[in-house]
Amino acid sequence: MAVRVLVVNFKAYPTAFDSTAEALAREASRLESGLPVRVILAPPAPVVPRVLAIHGDVYTQHLDPVGMGAHTGRIPAEAARALGVRGSLVNHSERKMVLRDVAAVVSKLREQGLESIVCADTPAEAAAAAYLKPTMVAVEPPELIGTGIPVSKARPEVITESLEAIRKVDPALPLLAGAGISSPEDAVRAVELGASGVLVASIVMKSRDPPASMRSLAEALATA
Amino acid sequence: MAVRVLVVNFKAYPTAFDSTAEALAREASRLESGLPVRVILAPPAPVVPRVLAIHGDVYTQHLDPVGMGAHTGRIPAEAARALGVRGSLVNHSERKMVLRDVAAVVSKLREQGLESIVCADTPAEAAAAAYLKPTMVAVEPPELIGTGIPVSKARPEVITESLEAIRKVDPALPLLAGAGISSPEDAVRAVELGASGVLVASIVMKSRDPPASMRSLAEALATA
Amino acid sequence: MAVRVLVVNFKAYPTAFDSTAEALAREASRLESGLPVRVILAPPAPVVPRVLAIHGDVYTQHLDPVGMGAHTGRIPAEAARALGVRGSLVNHSERKMVLRDVAAVVSKLREQGLESIVCADTPAEAAAAAYLKPTMVAVEPPELIGTGIPVSKARPEVITESLEAIRKVDPALPLLAGAGISSPEDAVRAVELGASGVLVASIVMKSRDPPASMRSLAEALATA
Amino acid sequence: MAVRVLVVNFKAYPTAFDSTAEALAREASRLESGLPVRVILAPPAPVVPRVLAIHGDVYTQHLDPVGMGAHTGRIPAEAARALGVRGSLVNHSERKMVLRDVAAVVSKLREQGLESIVCADTPAEAAAAAYLKPTMVAVEPPELIGTGIPVSKARPEVITESLEAIRKVDPALPLLAGAGISSPEDAVRAVELGASGVLVASIVMKSRDPPASMRSLAEALATA
Repeated sequence: MAVRVLVVNFKAYPTAFDSTAEALAREASRLESGLPVRVILAPPAPVVPRVLAIHGDVYTQHLDPVGMGAHTGRIPAEAARALGVRGSLVNHSERKMVLRDVAAVVSKLREQGLESIVCADTPAEAAAAAYLKPTMVAVEPPELIGTGIPVSKARPEVITESLEAIRKVDPALPLLAGAGISSPEDAVRAVELGASGVLVASIVMKSRDPPASMRSLAEALATA
Repeated sequence: MAVRVLVVNFKAYPTAFDSTAEALAREASRLESGLPVRVILAPPAPVVPRVLAIHGDVYTQHLDPVGMGAHTGRIPAEAARALGVRGSLVNHSERKMVLRDVAAVVSKLREQGLESIVCADTPAEAAAAAYLKPTMVAVEPPELIGTGIPVSKARPEVITESLEAIRKVDPALPLLAGAGISSPEDAVRAVELGASGVLVASIVMKSRDPPASMRSLAEALATA
Repeated sequence: MAVRVLVVNFKAYPTAFDSTAEALAREASRLESGLPVRVILAPPAPVVPRVLAIHGDVYTQHLDPVGMGAHTGRIPAEAARALGVRGSLVNHSERKMVLRDVAAVVSKLREQGLESIVCADTPAEAAAAAYLKPTMVAVEPPELIGTGIPVSKARPEVITESLEAIRKVDPALPLLAGAGISSPEDAVRAVELGASGVLVASIVMKSRDPPASMRSLAEALATA
Repeated sequence: MAVRVLVVNFKAYPTAFDSTAEALAREASRLESGLPVRVILAPPAPVVPRVLAIHGDVYTQHLDPVGMGAHTGRIPAEAARALGVRGSLVNHSERKMVLRDVAAVVSKLREQGLESIVCADTPAEAAAAAYLKPTMVAVEPPELIGTGIPVSKARPEVITESLEAIRKVDPALPLLAGAGISSPEDAVRAVELGASGVLVASIVMKSRDPPASMRSLAEALATA
């Protein structure tokens, strides 16, 4: 059985900036050493160093399709390795880019030996993403993000059609599912539909006990 | 004599990500304790914590006009205080925003008791910036940025006309000058034209000895 | 008494594309020959020729800050004269641009001997607009656009402060007021506050009888 | 043999706005009645009515992913039918959109019984486009646009890989090829590689005799 993947996108929730960040980093390290689950944390850019000091498996939430140089307020994809992250989310539903920019960021990450998870709204976008040879593709119907209505129950065909679409391009490319995941069961259901893991945010970041919520998801994925 | 201001925008030069960041932070702290010059450092977002651990006077290069919440790959202006920075550059020539977004970021910073330096290309934009009641306005003709052709020599009227424009709105609002500053003399000349200090990037970040370049500028400003 | 100005922005309402366009053009021509009011019509780009065939005083709703050449889906400001329009709205609240692009479009229009009305959300933006030397400035608080809550009643200080701001730059520059104008009285009130006219959309375009609504406004402005 | 397709994108070349527009419209009508070639003309929005008065097969260069209503300086995809065009270019290399907006425009066109040609930079983008069920897909490597270096000679694999990519999704979907087409032979070569036609701009619009250039391309396609 392949290792399952749990990605926690901190977004810009208040907990992304307070000591929850460190608590999640410690819990993620513990989980990875005890369970066959990979836990990737994606904090806001200025919080990356604090998380990275505790847990090695950190992604940026976004990188810009530019090289190093005279750019203000941009984080060049080329700088990812210098930052110490393992990869980046790319083209998240809340930070969409035109496809040529997605391609540029994925390619710059690959050149640095780093990973990329390209997010897609739909099977069509997942297909395009697959052609860019990212590390993983994550599909999230934007209308379900943050709703608590899980994609794996409400729109399972988005997962299965995305799988079908990306397998035409690369049969081995892992697919993550996201949007509305609000319980460990939703995560298990996504895996049963063929996903290699889940991409979550509010279920952890808005929980009363974020590390415990993350642990429940990881444990469920471990047995899925 | 009012304290002069030196802002060093790290941009996304390679030196912004390597150990130069810490070297500049140490030198900035030393300079501030010895000279009547305020030294503000503006590193890329993921480098902010490393600089802040050494030097307290740090600005972000950009903040987004959004509140905390479900935003991926954005740094909410509302999060600035939680990050520990003292303020932010806003509307830099390489990260222009429409005016209503500039207004939103300045206002969110003020609500948190933080500072803002609004950048302007022209006297017209400087006038608009002044109405937003930022902490300072910085004028930089974009066609001179990074050229080594100093605004204070090549286009001194941009400084004097910007001063005139902002003084109609707020006579006490400090103006910084930037673009093409390539020697301590250029900085002195900007102050002679009425500026309260300078905003620089390449002269420091692309120098063979960035802390020494920064020191020369600070010393020149101290005696201007 | 200076001639009053009535600008009708067709926006993209259904009536902007049907035979209402021609009806408004005919009525505008009639009004201009009988009243001391200038009536400017601003239809969507593909409707410009139909309106222009009837009424000469037509503005585009937006122009792009590019020259003629290899641009797809853009209307270069440089092409305005070739299109036969008299000028353009610039920086409308629903089509904001960064200030350097506003400056570029205004300047390209002036070079062709054409007019520009730069829209502003606030007195601060109105001040910036005034520096660009447009033909007129129009101030519209975006939160009132389309609400039927008239700026001239609900936020008269936006008009008076904008006037004060632009007069510091150019005492002769005409100001138009817009947002929420829902009756001829609202237009009169705007003129009493110092505006040279009004910029309207929904009161005409969503009216049961658009030409009659436009006529009522023009008649009220004529006697204001 | 299926009918070949020739799309002439007027872009914003000076000839797009002068009497060349009518000359091309007349020639396009003549060509269609004499040759088994469909000639689609894509003028700038304000020129659409002039071309449409002569030649029925007109596309807009771009439509916005919005409905009719309070939108200034946008052309709603929903308004296409009211404008009388037969369809629209979507996502041209000079007017890229994020994929969800491409999907929205294609879908709004289909609902009105109209056509769409979705442009793609790469086979990956062509694959994504195919999932949206447009009328045709056009592939144009942006680095060759306007260069006179024909895609069909310099990068034939872009055409063949795009064909392969879209056929996995829909075997009957026609592919057009574009970028750098500078002679009738280049157009023929594109058809030999599997394209159903070509999308051109500068070869016609910057020619000394635009209608003659268009005729040469049409004649070459007719015999390909």
